Amino acid sequence: MSGPVVRNSAYRHDIAASFARQGALKLIGAELDAVEPGLCRVRLPITDKLHQHHGHVHGGVVGMIGDVAGGYAAMSLFEPAREILTVEYKINFLAPARGTMLVAEGRVLRAGRSITVTAVEVRAVEEDGDRLCAVLQQTCMPG
Amino acid sequence: MSGPVVRNSAYRHDIAASFARQGALKLIGAELDAVEPGLCRVRLPITDKLHQHHGHVHGGVVGMIGDVAGGYAAMSLFEPAREILTVEYKINFLAPARGTMLVAEGRVLRAGRSITVTAVEVRAVEEDGDRLCAVLQQTCMPG
Amino acid sequence: MSGPVVRNSAYRHDIAASFARQGALKLIGAELDAVEPGLCRVRLPITDKLHQHHGHVHGGVVGMIGDVAGGYAAMSLFEPAREILTVEYKINFLAPARGTMLVAEGRVLRAGRSITVTAVEVRAVEEDGDRLCAVLQQTCMPG
Amino acid sequence: MSGPVVRNSAYRHDIAASFARQGALKLIGAELDAVEPGLCRVRLPITDKLHQHHGHVHGGVVGMIGDVAGGYAAMSLFEPAREILTVEYKINFLAPARGTMLVAEGRVLRAGRSITVTAVEVRAVEEDGDRLCAVLQQTCMPG
Repeated sequence: MSGPVVRNSAYRHDIAASFARQGALKLIGAELDAVEPGLCRVRLPITDKLHQHHGHVHGGVVGMIGDVAGGYAAMSLFEPAREILTVEYKINFLAPARGTMLVAEGRVLRAGRSITVTAVEVRAVEEDGDRLCAVLQQTCMPG
Repeated sequence: MSGPVVRNSAYRHDIAASFARQGALKLIGAELDAVEPGLCRVRLPITDKLHQHHGHVHGGVVGMIGDVAGGYAAMSLFEPAREILTVEYKINFLAPARGTMLVAEGRVLRAGRSITVTAVEVRAVEEDGDRLCAVLQQTCMPG
Repeated sequence: MSGPVVRNSAYRHDIAASFARQGALKLIGAELDAVEPGLCRVRLPITDKLHQHHGHVHGGVVGMIGDVAGGYAAMSLFEPAREILTVEYKINFLAPARGTMLVAEGRVLRAGRSITVTAVEVRAVEEDGDRLCAVLQQTCMPG
Repeated sequence: MSGPVVRNSAYRHDIAASFARQGALKLIGAELDAVEPGLCRVRLPITDKLHQHHGHVHGGVVGMIGDVAGGYAAMSLFEPAREILTVEYKINFLAPARGTMLVAEGRVLRAGRSITVTAVEVRAVEEDGDRLCAVLQQTCMPG
């Protein structure tokens, strides 16, 4: 990719506004950390309410912030006034999601007129460093 | 598959206990609806707090109940005292997740010693019937 | 799905012509078995040249006929004069692909204007019956 | 990953021997280009026989070399005398696979006792440079 092309000069504002409208993200406590052309980073402070049976963050929650990070990375390259639709994603869980914080970083691999493909890494921040705990491959389209 | 083989006679009890320990499922309001050998059904009453920007249930939440339904379908055929680990899943979103309730039904396609593969359908119950809104293909293992 | 809608009355002819142009399918010996609205079945007689290191059909070949069966199932519901593009697929291998023949059957789960989603089952025909050896979940679009 | 751990000092020999036994790889003309700990690169000179209906390399063939590159990357970190089994993979097609050569490079993301996860990039080498044409996310296990 020879540099991502930004088509919506208000993309940061529009993505922040879209993020803020998502009740499910508020529910889990996700925060928009950074948006650049073709990139989005989402943070999730880890609290007890997000746990599954092993005391780690539930895989579905990991998938949720991964999906969101990839989707907004895609939306950063959309035309103005287009929302994001996730067509599909695939997630592999590599390590338990535990520690103080999860950080999901999505990057656009291919930005197309109809289809955008992203790759997302989700890292768990622990006291002794951070650890790759999930990877996603995702397909999006403008909604 | 010539009839699924149950190895843990207390599988229903163990799955219900595991489900109850998952804070993330309580957070979204998911309920365990049915467990049979090689099958699990999870219900999610739809409330405002689960919405994304279009007013439908967030895809990550859809993925979460799909993951859980597939995982417990797999666990129903595990040896006693084994928990469920999701290795990976892939989800396609087919229609908006809206209405009064989501129902995720997972079925075991292949139960192996180390690897179990499931297929999950998530349906949205609306006034005029129900609609297939997502499908998952999932790989699990005993944890 | 309340009955698939056929938009191209010549879909069978067009799919057969497209299939015949695919050198890679000739190379492995795949045959178009059946095409119905929203469905396609592809057969592959098993020969030595398709084997991997265990003497079974190589997973990549299994994926190839699965991809083709899903893609032509999708194309059966396209407008006239549109070819098929695979956006992505995910395949789980459930059992060794061995015996006399592989049969891949693709079905459309959702036919959309831009995106079509299919599910594919690949079965291995052996002397004592047939066995599900792989499942795919696939996303296509008109090309 | 703090440096991949090699458990089989003969991994290069064993992978080359395994590769050579795969009739399907000979059929399409794939070549083993490089094997390092946790990495494998496979080349495929592009010929007419590999084409699909658009004159590009068939997606199934792209998937095949991607699957192989990921699988042997995984096998490079296995114990001695273990073959590779692909549990599943997911592939996104990003650009047409055309030019003179395809190069698939697989890297291990997580090497586990039972499950290994890889990421694969497939690039098409054209006169004016090379282009990312597909990405895979794959799960393997020792066979």
